[in-house]
Amino acid sequence: MSTTPTFLQPAARAAGYRPSPVRDFWEVSMQPGFISLAGGNPDLSVLPLAELGATASRIITERGMDALQYGSGTGTPGARDAAARVMAAEGNPVDPSAIQITAGSQMALELVVKLLCDPGDVILAEGPTYVGALGVFAGMEAEVVHVPMDADGLQPDALEETIGRLRSQGRTIKALYTIPNFHNPTGITLSAERRPRVVEICSRAGIPIIEDNPYGLLAFDGSTLPSMHQLDPENVIYLGSFSKIVAPGLRVGWAVAPESLRRPLQLASEATTICASVLSQTLIEEYVLGSDWQGILDKARALYRERSAAVQEALREHLPSGTRWSEPRGGFFTWLDLAEGSDCHAVLDAAIDAKVVFVPGTAFYSGPDRGPGAPGISQLRLAFSLEDADTLREGVKRLAAAIRG
Amino acid sequence: MSTTPTFLQPAARAAGYRPSPVRDFWEVSMQPGFISLAGGNPDLSVLPLAELGATASRIITERGMDALQYGSGTGTPGARDAAARVMAAEGNPVDPSAIQITAGSQMALELVVKLLCDPGDVILAEGPTYVGALGVFAGMEAEVVHVPMDADGLQPDALEETIGRLRSQGRTIKALYTIPNFHNPTGITLSAERRPRVVEICSRAGIPIIEDNPYGLLAFDGSTLPSMHQLDPENVIYLGSFSKIVAPGLRVGWAVAPESLRRPLQLASEATTICASVLSQTLIEEYVLGSDWQGILDKARALYRERSAAVQEALREHLPSGTRWSEPRGGFFTWLDLAEGSDCHAVLDAAIDAKVVFVPGTAFYSGPDRGPGAPGISQLRLAFSLEDADTLREGVKRLAAAIRG
Repeated sequence: MSTTPTFLQPAARAAGYRPSPVRDFWEVSMQPGFISLAGGNPDLSVLPLAELGATASRIITERGMDALQYGSGTGTPGARDAAARVMAAEGNPVDPSAIQITAGSQMALELVVKLLCDPGDVILAEGPTYVGALGVFAGMEAEVVHVPMDADGLQPDALEETIGRLRSQGRTIKALYTIPNFHNPTGITLSAERRPRVVEICSRAGIPIIEDNPYGLLAFDGSTLPSMHQLDPENVIYLGSFSKIVAPGLRVGWAVAPESLRRPLQLASEATTICASVLSQTLIEEYVLGSDWQGILDKARALYRERSAAVQEALREHLPSGTRWSEPRGGFFTWLDLAEGSDCHAVLDAAIDAKVVFVPGTAFYSGPDRGPGAPGISQLRLAFSLEDADTLREGVKRLAAAIRG
Repeated sequence: MSTTPTFLQPAARAAGYRPSPVRDFWEVSMQPGFISLAGGNPDLSVLPLAELGATASRIITERGMDALQYGSGTGTPGARDAAARVMAAEGNPVDPSAIQITAGSQMALELVVKLLCDPGDVILAEGPTYVGALGVFAGMEAEVVHVPMDADGLQPDALEETIGRLRSQGRTIKALYTIPNFHNPTGITLSAERRPRVVEICSRAGIPIIEDNPYGLLAFDGSTLPSMHQLDPENVIYLGSFSKIVAPGLRVGWAVAPESLRRPLQLASEATTICASVLSQTLIEEYVLGSDWQGILDKARALYRERSAAVQEALREHLPSGTRWSEPRGGFFTWLDLAEGSDCHAVLDAAIDAKVVFVPGTAFYSGPDRGPGAPGISQLRLAFSLEDADTLREGVKRLAAAIRG
């Protein structure tokens, strides 16, 4: 005599959670012979695994009663110190007490959006932007309005114009979400000149900036730029991650928020996961405070530099005219603009036949996924972080054939 | 020229995240000489730390490229197998493919509530209930309506009456949240006789049950009861946890949901943390699939049994007449009803002077925290999971003096 269970009448926000093409390609790309230019996984071959294993063993044996127990809601003191060290290495000193540790920086973003956005509120974001952020925004029923980019990143004039337009429509803008360094998916970096301007526009408009910075230490030449957080700590919420500089499988990230948001962040974090894995936090503490993590990062940077160069060379050699692409100076990604009228989904079908995968451009925009007007329909993202240079060259060659059709 | 940043105008849900007294007592209870009857931490002294350390070392050294990398959004196959083994050990066989791994079962609850509840929807829950669940419900702006318990757990007649009353008021009930085994905070177990009745009432009313079962394997005599999930897998969302049977610091839990909710759960999980710590998942896989975890759990059960007995004995010896308490057959907690007109906050003040802490009853109810009418005002929770028997006896003695005033 059961009636239909109520879980078939989900919350409005449930409709917002859509499959991530990045993760859905995982299975396809695991098939033998496939080359994946899809997922943005770091190359972990540089890690001293035996040493890390010995460290984990020591932590559990000597400090296991703490490392395997519930931990502080703000994060362990050691993990907060480690996050502060990483920020200092990038030229962004903060006090460890300002740091909220989370189970990955994805979760830090989720908490911030949870605390900021009521349904219908607007989040500004680069167009294109990180697909995982779009999932968070949709899940909290926030509407994304994209601000265009060029080779120097987010366009300040367009930002100003967008804010004015939305406000004249009576919309509530809750934040600008931006990835200033080696942006996902374009690989583009917001120029040093534009940073103070973007910060000033948002400060004047009373719009907080969510600065997502997982790739800041991954410049091919090791250089760094001042964070937006350094420029205006009272109006910038900074998100950091150990995933790209240590290991994503540990799931530890952090947020640095203005004072008034710190306690709410802690409470929301406790309500979501109680705390991040204490074992992971302790391992990161030992790795960052007790090893030459920057020397290891140098090796990773050299790998990514070589791989990006291989992709650029192969793109120049194989891609048909009419195709343009970004030239990243760091990070994991290159962004392609196909000839006008191209359909990235059709190219993907052909690419899968040729045993290469990438992420179609439409994944990185809010809006319709298909059809001639869909944003990103003639664009695509290539990741060069995980495959070696020869494989990448072969992948681009296959991609070029798929584009030619 | 900054205007007030918009984050000072938080989302409506931000007001729902309130401090957990359980976690706020942490610092007080860490002071020298203090006895904590507050936090529900498992005793990890039974764990074979050196062995676990060696396992972690082997995992990172031999499987580090996977265990430190991003993992599957549903959880690693090994962690899903381990969760299924734990459920089978409790008499609840499920297929591992039905299991969604999360970063602790707190997060599993958060995801389910996110997917089910729009603001203003009602969640039914035992009165009292788990304080961390109240945080999740408030964060998603769901309203909690309590259903009374007695020594056999949730009262089916009261459940039926509450559903009828709320529906006649036009309210939307989205779920019954229940902790059937060694309930937090009361230690009470829903009797075997009542389970089919509760399941039938909810099924008939089309109200899914969220069955939170972190303590089910912690009966002092090792016995188990059929889960609600076994009785009605199509209408029960089961939440499991490794925190109380392995280690909470790893932050791994799981959900088993009806088919239609599995994909939404995966997507919401990916949007929240991408995946749970892969290192933690792999360590749990090796521990549950490769060691005598049930033998170790036997030792833990013996500890908790001895401690609960010590608390019961001390309560009988020291507490003033007019005080009643629950007699748990497993789990971590005993619940006290003070004499009518008592104020648990006043008792807590006196207890802190006497260097003992507990969690006041008001923490476990939705509603006002202070004043004569506040639910739980004359109640309190004692945890016996972490301190040894002698310390517990001394703690209860101090508590008794605080109650006498």
